[in-house]
Amino acid sequence: MANPSPMVPERLQKFIDRFARFPAVGPRLATRLAFYLAHLDAPALAEVVDAVSGLATLDRCPRCSFPKARTADRCAVCTDAARDRGTIALVERETDLISIERTRQFRGTYFLVGELPERGTLTPELRARLDGLKKLIDTELGGRATELVVAVGLNALGDLFASVVAQELKGRAEKITRIGRGIPTGGEIEFADEETLGSALKRRS
Amino acid sequence: MANPSPMVPERLQKFIDRFARFPAVGPRLATRLAFYLAHLDAPALAEVVDAVSGLATLDRCPRCSFPKARTADRCAVCTDAARDRGTIALVERETDLISIERTRQFRGTYFLVGELPERGTLTPELRARLDGLKKLIDTELGGRATELVVAVGLNALGDLFASVVAQELKGRAEKITRIGRGIPTGGEIEFADEETLGSALKRRS
Repeated sequence: MANPSPMVPERLQKFIDRFARFPAVGPRLATRLAFYLAHLDAPALAEVVDAVSGLATLDRCPRCSFPKARTADRCAVCTDAARDRGTIALVERETDLISIERTRQFRGTYFLVGELPERGTLTPELRARLDGLKKLIDTELGGRATELVVAVGLNALGDLFASVVAQELKGRAEKITRIGRGIPTGGEIEFADEETLGSALKRRS
Repeated sequence: MANPSPMVPERLQKFIDRFARFPAVGPRLATRLAFYLAHLDAPALAEVVDAVSGLATLDRCPRCSFPKARTADRCAVCTDAARDRGTIALVERETDLISIERTRQFRGTYFLVGELPERGTLTPELRARLDGLKKLIDTELGGRATELVVAVGLNALGDLFASVVAQELKGRAEKITRIGRGIPTGGEIEFADEETLGSALKRRS
Protein backbone atom coordinates (compact mmCIF):
# COMPACT_ATOMS: atom_id res chain seq x y z
CA MET A 1 0.00 0.00 0.00
CA ALA A 2 3.08 2.23 -0.07
CA ASN A 3 2.59 4.24 -3.28
CA PRO A 4 -0.52 6.07 -4.40
CA SER A 5 -2.49 4.20 -7.05
CA PRO A 6 -4.14 6.08 -9.94
CA MET A 7 -7.22 3.97 -9.08
CA VAL A 8 -7.71 5.72 -5.78
CA PRO A 9 -9.86 8.89 -5.76
CA GLU A 10 -7.90 11.96 -4.71
CA ARG A 11 -9.80 12.56 -1.47
CA LEU A 12 -9.34 8.94 -0.45
CA GLN A 13 -5.61 9.19 -1.15
CA LYS A 14 -5.42 12.41 0.84
CA PHE A 15 -6.93 10.63 3.84
CA ILE A 16 -4.49 7.72 3.48
CA ASP A 17 -1.47 10.04 3.21
CA ARG A 18 -2.51 11.99 6.30
CA PHE A 19 -3.44 9.03 8.50
CA ALA A 20 -0.39 7.00 7.48
CA ARG A 21 1.74 9.58 9.32
CA PHE A 22 0.03 8.97 12.67
CA PRO A 23 1.90 6.95 15.30
CA ALA A 24 1.32 3.17 15.01
CA VAL A 25 -0.87 3.56 11.91
CA GLY A 26 1.15 3.36 8.66
CA PRO A 27 -0.10 3.06 5.08
CA ARG A 28 -1.80 -0.33 5.35
CA LEU A 29 -4.06 0.52 8.29
CA ALA A 30 -4.65 4.02 6.88
CA THR A 31 -5.86 2.44 3.61
CA ARG A 32 -8.11 0.03 5.46
CA LEU A 33 -9.61 2.87 7.51
CA ALA A 34 -10.09 5.00 4.40
CA PHE A 35 -12.24 2.36 2.71
CA TYR A 36 -14.11 1.65 5.93
CA LEU A 37 -14.94 5.32 6.42
CA ALA A 38 -15.70 5.89 2.73
CA HIS A 39 -18.50 3.36 3.05
CA LEU A 40 -20.10 4.85 6.16
CA ASP A 41 -23.36 6.67 5.54
CA ALA A 42 -23.44 10.46 5.83
CA PRO A 43 -24.62 10.70 9.49
CA ALA A 44 -22.03 8.13 10.66
CA LEU A 45 -19.22 9.93 8.82
CA ALA A 46 -20.41 13.25 10.28
CA GLU A 47 -20.10 11.67 13.73
CA VAL A 48 -16.46 10.76 13.00
CA VAL A 49 -15.74 14.26 11.70
CA ASP A 50 -17.29 15.65 14.88
CA ALA A 51 -15.19 13.30 17.04
CA VAL A 52 -12.01 14.61 15.41
CA SER A 53 -12.96 18.29 15.32
CA GLY A 54 -14.04 18.08 18.97
CA LEU A 55 -10.36 17.69 19.88
CA ALA A 56 -9.91 21.36 18.94
CA THR A 57 -11.85 22.23 22.12
CA LEU A 58 -8.96 20.89 24.23
CA ASP A 59 -5.72 22.40 25.43
CA ARG A 60 -3.20 21.49 28.10
CA CYS A 61 -3.55 21.84 31.86
CA PRO A 62 -1.15 24.66 32.87
CA ARG A 63 -0.10 22.68 35.96
CA CYS A 64 0.52 19.13 34.66
CA SER A 65 0.13 19.41 30.84
CA PHE A 66 -2.55 16.72 30.60
CA PRO A 67 -5.28 17.59 28.04
CA LYS A 68 -8.27 19.46 29.45
CA ALA A 69 -11.36 21.19 28.07
CA ARG A 70 -10.38 24.69 26.95
CA THR A 71 -13.15 26.06 29.14
CA ALA A 72 -11.68 24.51 32.33
CA ASP A 73 -8.86 26.17 34.28
CA ARG A 74 -7.12 22.91 35.06
CA CYS A 75 -7.49 19.18 34.36
CA ALA A 76 -9.71 16.95 36.51
CA VAL A 77 -6.87 15.74 38.77
CA CYS A 78 -5.31 19.17 39.35
CA THR A 79 -8.81 20.55 40.12
CA ASP A 80 -9.64 17.80 42.63
CA ALA A 81 -9.23 19.24 46.17
CA ALA A 82 -8.91 15.72 47.61
CA ARG A 83 -5.62 15.07 45.80
CA ASP A 84 -2.30 15.49 47.58
CA ARG A 85 -0.62 18.33 45.68
CA GLY A 86 2.68 17.84 47.48
CA THR A 87 3.08 14.39 45.92
CA ILE A 88 3.76 14.57 42.21
CA ALA A 89 4.22 11.65 39.84
CA LEU A 90 6.41 12.37 36.80
CA VAL A 91 5.06 10.48 33.79
CA GLU A 92 6.22 10.25 30.19
CA ARG A 93 2.88 9.87 28.45
CA GLU A 94 -0.79 10.61 29.05
CA THR A 95 -1.53 6.90 28.70
CA ASP A 96 0.83 6.20 31.64
CA LEU A 97 -1.17 8.64 33.73
CA ILE A 98 -4.42 6.90 32.81
CA SER A 99 -2.92 3.51 33.71
CA ILE A 100 -1.85 4.82 37.12
CA GLU A 101 -5.26 6.44 37.75
CA ARG A 102 -6.94 3.16 37.00
CA THR A 103 -5.12 1.43 39.89
CA ARG A 104 -6.75 3.88 42.39
CA GLN A 105 -3.54 3.53 44.44
CA PHE A 106 -2.20 7.01 43.87
CA ARG A 107 -3.79 10.08 45.44
CA GLY A 108 -1.16 12.62 44.43
CA THR A 109 -1.01 14.71 41.28
CA TYR A 110 0.96 14.41 38.06
CA PHE A 111 3.50 16.16 35.94
CA LEU A 112 3.86 15.16 32.31
CA VAL A 113 7.51 15.22 31.26
CA GLY A 114 6.95 13.96 27.70
CA GLU A 115 8.92 11.28 25.85
CA LEU A 116 12.37 10.77 27.37
CA PRO A 117 15.17 11.73 24.97
CA GLU A 118 16.73 8.79 23.11
CA ARG A 119 20.21 9.34 24.49
CA GLY A 120 19.12 10.14 28.01
CA THR A 121 20.73 13.57 27.82
CA LEU A 122 18.96 16.65 29.12
CA THR A 123 17.51 18.15 25.92
CA PRO A 124 16.35 21.79 25.92
CA GLU A 125 12.73 20.54 25.92
CA LEU A 126 13.26 18.30 28.93
CA ARG A 127 15.20 21.03 30.75
CA ALA A 128 12.30 23.43 30.12
CA ARG A 129 9.87 20.84 31.53
CA LEU A 130 11.99 20.33 34.66
CA ASP A 131 12.27 24.10 35.07
CA GLY A 132 8.47 24.20 34.93
CA LEU A 133 8.32 21.59 37.67
CA LYS A 134 10.76 23.59 39.83
CA LYS A 135 8.61 26.67 39.37
CA LEU A 136 5.48 24.71 40.31
CA ILE A 137 7.18 23.49 43.50
CA ASP A 138 8.45 26.97 44.32
CA THR A 139 5.18 28.82 43.77
CA GLU A 140 2.67 26.25 44.96
CA LEU A 141 4.54 24.18 47.57
CA GLY A 142 6.82 26.79 49.10
CA GLY A 143 9.90 25.36 47.42
CA ARG A 144 9.56 21.78 48.72
CA ALA A 145 7.46 18.85 47.48
CA THR A 146 6.59 15.99 49.84
CA GLU A 147 7.47 13.38 47.26
CA LEU A 148 8.37 13.16 43.61
CA VAL A 149 7.51 9.76 42.14
CA VAL A 150 9.55 9.12 39.00
CA ALA A 151 6.92 6.95 37.28
CA VAL A 152 8.78 6.22 34.04
CA GLY A 153 9.76 2.88 32.51
CA LEU A 154 12.15 0.73 34.57
CA ASN A 155 14.75 0.60 31.81
CA ALA A 156 18.07 2.27 31.06
CA LEU A 157 16.50 5.50 29.80
CA GLY A 158 14.23 5.66 32.84
CA ASP A 159 17.19 5.05 35.19
CA LEU A 160 19.12 7.85 33.52
CA PHE A 161 16.13 10.16 33.77
CA ALA A 162 15.65 9.27 37.47
CA SER A 163 19.26 10.24 38.16
CA VAL A 164 18.79 13.54 36.30
CA VAL A 165 15.70 14.24 38.41
CA ALA A 166 17.56 13.31 41.61
CA GLN A 167 20.32 15.73 40.70
CA GLU A 168 18.16 18.60 39.48
CA LEU A 169 15.45 18.46 42.13
CA LYS A 170 17.08 17.03 45.25
CA GLY A 171 16.74 20.33 47.14
CA ARG A 172 13.08 20.63 46.24
CA ALA A 173 11.63 17.33 47.52
CA GLU A 174 11.63 15.50 50.85
CA LYS A 175 12.03 12.31 48.90
CA ILE A 176 12.40 11.24 45.31
CA THR A 177 11.10 7.73 44.61
CA ARG A 178 10.49 5.37 41.72
CA ILE A 179 7.59 2.98 41.52
CA GLY A 180 8.40 -0.45 42.97
CA ARG A 181 10.01 -3.20 40.98
CA GLY A 182 6.71 -5.04 40.64
CA ILE A 183 6.92 -4.21 36.98
CA PRO A 184 9.27 -6.43 35.01
CA THR A 185 12.55 -4.66 34.38
CA GLY A 186 12.62 -3.28 30.85
CA GLY A 187 8.83 -2.99 30.81
CA GLU A 188 6.70 0.03 30.01
CA ILE A 189 4.17 1.59 32.42
CA GLU A 190 1.50 1.67 29.75
CA PHE A 191 1.41 -2.09 29.30
CA ALA A 192 1.38 -3.12 32.97
CA ASP A 193 -1.79 -4.76 34.28
CA GLU A 194 -3.63 -2.84 37.01
CA GLU A 195 -2.74 -5.16 39.86
CA THR A 196 1.00 -5.18 39.15
CA LEU A 197 1.03 -1.44 38.65
CA GLY A 198 -1.02 -0.91 41.81
CA SER A 199 1.30 -3.00 43.96
CA ALA A 200 4.34 -1.34 42.40
CA LEU A 201 2.85 2.01 43.43
CA LYS A 202 2.27 0.83 47.03
CA ARG A 203 5.82 -0.47 47.38
CA ARG A 204 7.49 2.62 45.94
CA SER A 205 10.81 3.39 47.54
CA MET B 1 -7.55 1.53 28.25
CA ALA B 2 -10.86 -0.35 28.25
CA ASN B 3 -13.01 1.81 30.53
CA PRO B 4 -13.44 5.57 30.41
CA SER B 5 -11.43 7.41 33.06
CA PRO B 6 -12.90 10.45 34.86
CA MET B 7 -9.52 12.06 34.09
CA VAL B 8 -10.18 12.13 30.38
CA PRO B 9 -12.00 15.20 29.00
CA GLU B 10 -15.37 14.33 27.45
CA ARG B 11 -14.42 15.23 23.88
CA LEU B 12 -11.27 13.15 24.11
CA GLN B 13 -13.28 10.19 25.41
CA LYS B 14 -15.79 10.65 22.61
CA PHE B 15 -13.00 10.38 20.05
CA ILE B 16 -11.62 7.25 21.76
CA ASP B 17 -15.04 5.57 21.88
CA ARG B 18 -15.68 6.27 18.21
CA PHE B 19 -12.26 5.30 16.87
CA ALA B 20 -12.04 2.17 19.04
CA ARG B 21 -14.90 0.73 16.96
CA PHE B 22 -12.96 0.97 13.68
CA PRO B 23 -11.52 -2.24 12.20
CA ALA B 24 -8.01 -3.07 13.50
CA VAL B 25 -7.98 -0.07 15.87
CA GLY B 26 -9.31 -0.91 19.35
CA PRO B 27 -9.20 1.18 22.54
CA ARG B 28 -5.41 1.28 23.00
CA LEU B 29 -4.59 2.67 19.56
CA ALA B 30 -7.65 4.95 19.68
CA THR B 31 -6.35 6.41 22.99
CA ARG B 32 -2.89 6.89 21.56
CA LEU B 33 -4.30 8.64 18.49
CA ALA B 34 -6.56 10.82 20.65
CA PHE B 35 -3.62 12.22 22.62
CA TYR B 36 -1.53 12.60 19.47
CA LEU B 37 -4.28 14.57 17.73
CA ALA B 38 -5.15 16.58 20.85
CA HIS B 39 -1.62 17.97 20.78
CA LEU B 40 -1.62 18.98 17.11
CA ASP B 41 -1.86 22.70 16.50
CA ALA B 42 -5.10 24.11 15.05
CA PRO B 43 -4.05 24.11 11.35
CA ALA B 44 -2.75 20.52 11.55
CA LEU B 45 -5.93 19.32 13.24
CA ALA B 46 -8.02 21.16 10.65
CA GLU B 47 -6.10 19.25 7.97
CA VAL B 48 -7.07 15.95 9.63
CA VAL B 49 -10.71 17.04 9.91
CA ASP B 50 -10.61 17.96 6.22
CA ALA B 51 -9.09 14.58 5.33
CA VAL B 52 -11.98 12.79 7.07
CA SER B 53 -14.78 15.05 5.85
CA GLY B 54 -13.41 14.80 2.30
CA LEU B 55 -14.53 11.16 2.27
CA ALA B 56 -18.12 12.46 2.12
CA THR B 57 -17.40 13.50 -1.48
CA LEU B 58 -17.11 9.83 -2.48
CA ASP B 59 -19.63 7.21 -3.46
CA ARG B 60 -19.42 3.83 -5.20
CA CYS B 61 -18.85 3.14 -8.88
CA PRO B 62 -22.17 1.79 -10.23
CA ARG B 63 -20.31 -0.82 -12.29
CA CYS B 64 -17.73 -2.30 -9.88
CA SER B 65 -18.55 -0.69 -6.46
CA PHE B 66 -15.05 0.71 -5.92
CA PRO B 67 -15.12 4.20 -4.33
CA LYS B 68 -15.13 7.11 -6.79
CA ALA B 69 -15.53 10.88 -6.62
CA ARG B 70 -19.25 11.68 -6.47
CA THR B 71 -18.77 13.96 -9.47
CA ALA B 72 -17.45 11.13 -11.67
CA ASP B 73 -19.77 8.69 -13.48
CA ARG B 74 -17.55 5.70 -12.86
CA CYS B 75 -14.29 4.82 -11.14
CA ALA B 76 -10.91 5.27 -12.88
CA VAL B 77 -10.67 1.64 -14.07
CA CYS B 78 -14.24 1.40 -15.35
CA THR B 79 -13.75 4.73 -17.17
CA ASP B 80 -10.48 3.67 -18.83
CA ALA B 81 -11.21 2.77 -22.49
CA ALA B 82 -8.00 0.72 -22.69
CA ARG B 83 -9.26 -1.84 -20.17
CA ASP B 84 -10.73 -5.14 -21.32
CA ARG B 85 -14.35 -4.97 -20.10
CA GLY B 86 -15.02 -8.58 -21.00
CA THR B 87 -12.50 -9.77 -18.41
CA ILE B 88 -13.71 -9.15 -14.88
CA ALA B 89 -11.83 -9.93 -11.67
CA LEU B 90 -14.04 -10.65 -8.64
CA VAL B 91 -12.39 -9.26 -5.51
CA GLU B 92 -13.42 -9.26 -1.87
CA ARG B 93 -11.94 -5.96 -0.76
CA GLU B 94 -10.83 -2.67 -2.27
CA THR B 95 -7.34 -3.30 -0.92
CA ASP B 96 -7.19 -6.53 -2.98
CA LEU B 97 -8.02 -4.49 -6.07
CA ILE B 98 -5.23 -2.02 -5.30
CA SER B 99 -2.76 -4.89 -4.79
CA ILE B 100 -3.69 -6.37 -8.18
CA GLU B 101 -3.47 -2.97 -9.91
CA ARG B 102 -0.01 -2.52 -8.54
CA THR B 103 1.27 -5.63 -10.34
CA ARG B 104 0.35 -4.05 -13.73
CA GLN B 105 -0.36 -7.60 -14.93
CA PHE B 106 -4.12 -7.29 -15.21
CA ARG B 107 -5.78 -5.23 -17.95
CA GLY B 108 -9.37 -6.27 -17.29
CA THR B 109 -11.89 -4.64 -14.98
CA TYR B 110 -13.15 -5.51 -11.49
CA PHE B 111 -16.23 -6.42 -9.58
CA LEU B 112 -16.23 -5.99 -5.83
CA VAL B 113 -18.12 -8.85 -4.15
CA GLY B 114 -17.49 -7.75 -0.56
CA GLU B 115 -16.38 -9.92 2.36
CA LEU B 116 -17.17 -13.57 1.78
CA PRO B 117 -19.72 -14.94 4.25
CA GLU B 118 -18.20 -16.84 7.19
CA ARG B 119 -19.96 -20.10 6.40
CA GLY B 120 -19.47 -19.91 2.66
CA THR B 121 -23.22 -20.00 2.09
CA LEU B 122 -24.87 -17.68 -0.39
CA THR B 123 -26.17 -14.88 1.83
CA PRO B 124 -28.84 -12.49 0.49
CA GLU B 125 -26.15 -9.78 0.18
CA LEU B 126 -23.83 -12.01 -1.83
CA ARG B 127 -26.69 -13.24 -4.00
CA ALA B 128 -27.64 -9.62 -4.71
CA ARG B 129 -24.01 -8.89 -5.69
CA LEU B 130 -23.88 -11.88 -8.04
CA ASP B 131 -27.23 -10.84 -9.54
CA GLY B 132 -25.66 -7.43 -10.16
CA LEU B 133 -22.78 -9.11 -11.94
CA LYS B 134 -25.17 -11.16 -14.11
CA LYS B 135 -26.98 -7.98 -15.05
CA LEU B 136 -23.70 -6.26 -15.92
CA ILE B 137 -22.76 -9.19 -18.17
CA ASP B 138 -26.20 -9.23 -19.79
CA THR B 139 -26.48 -5.51 -20.48
CA GLU B 140 -22.87 -4.65 -21.26
CA LEU B 141 -21.38 -7.84 -22.68
CA GLY B 142 -24.39 -9.33 -24.49
CA GLY B 143 -24.81 -12.04 -21.89
CA ARG B 144 -21.30 -13.49 -22.06
CA ALA B 145 -18.04 -12.39 -20.41
CA THR B 146 -14.68 -13.42 -21.89
CA GLU B 147 -13.30 -14.39 -18.49
CA LEU B 148 -14.25 -14.15 -14.85
CA VAL B 149 -11.19 -14.23 -12.60
CA VAL B 150 -12.17 -15.28 -9.09
CA ALA B 151 -9.44 -13.28 -7.30
CA VAL B 152 -10.26 -14.19 -3.71
CA GLY B 153 -8.10 -15.84 -1.06
CA LEU B 154 -6.86 -19.37 -1.85
CA ASN B 155 -8.44 -20.85 1.24
CA ALA B 156 -11.53 -22.91 2.05
CA LEU B 157 -13.90 -19.92 1.93
CA GLY B 158 -12.43 -18.79 -1.37
CA ASP B 159 -12.74 -22.34 -2.81
CA LEU B 160 -16.37 -22.46 -1.76
CA PHE B 161 -17.03 -19.06 -3.28
CA ALA B 162 -15.31 -20.09 -6.53
CA SER B 163 -17.61 -23.11 -6.79
CA VAL B 164 -20.67 -20.89 -6.15
CA VAL B 165 -19.48 -18.55 -8.94
CA ALA B 166 -18.86 -21.50 -11.28
CA GLN B 167 -22.39 -22.75 -10.65
CA GLU B 168 -24.17 -19.39 -10.82
CA LEU B 169 -22.30 -17.90 -13.77
CA LYS B 170 -21.18 -20.80 -15.92
CA GLY B 171 -23.54 -19.84 -18.76
CA ARG B 172 -22.33 -16.25 -18.73
CA ALA B 173 -18.56 -16.61 -19.17
CA GLU B 174 -16.30 -18.33 -21.70
CA LYS B 175 -14.06 -19.29 -18.81
CA ILE B 176 -14.03 -18.90 -15.07
CA THR B 177 -10.52 -18.89 -13.58
CA ARG B 178 -8.76 -18.35 -10.29
CA ILE B 179 -5.42 -16.65 -9.91
CA GLY B 180 -2.48 -19.08 -10.01
CA ARG B 181 -1.22 -20.91 -7.00
CA GLY B 182 1.78 -18.61 -6.75
CA ILE B 183 0.25 -17.38 -3.55
CA PRO B 184 0.77 -19.67 -0.58
CA THR B 185 -2.36 -21.70 0.08
CA GLY B 186 -4.30 -20.18 2.96
CA GLY B 187 -2.89 -16.73 2.16
CA GLU B 188 -4.76 -13.49 1.58
CA ILE B 189 -4.52 -11.42 -1.62
CA GLU B 190 -3.94 -8.26 0.35
CA PHE B 191 -0.69 -9.45 1.90
CA ALA B 192 0.94 -10.92 -1.22
CA ASP B 193 4.05 -9.16 -2.54
CA GLU B 194 3.71 -7.63 -6.01
CA GLU B 195 5.92 -10.16 -7.79
CA THR B 196 4.15 -13.22 -6.40
CA LEU B 197 0.77 -11.71 -7.10
CA GLY B 198 1.83 -10.66 -10.61
CA SER B 199 3.07 -14.15 -11.50
CA ALA B 200 -0.04 -15.70 -9.98
CA LEU B 201 -2.10 -13.45 -12.26
CA LYS B 202 -0.10 -14.50 -15.34
CA ARG B 203 -0.47 -18.20 -14.57
CA ARG B 204 -4.19 -18.05 -13.87
CA SER B 205 -6.02 -21.15 -14.96
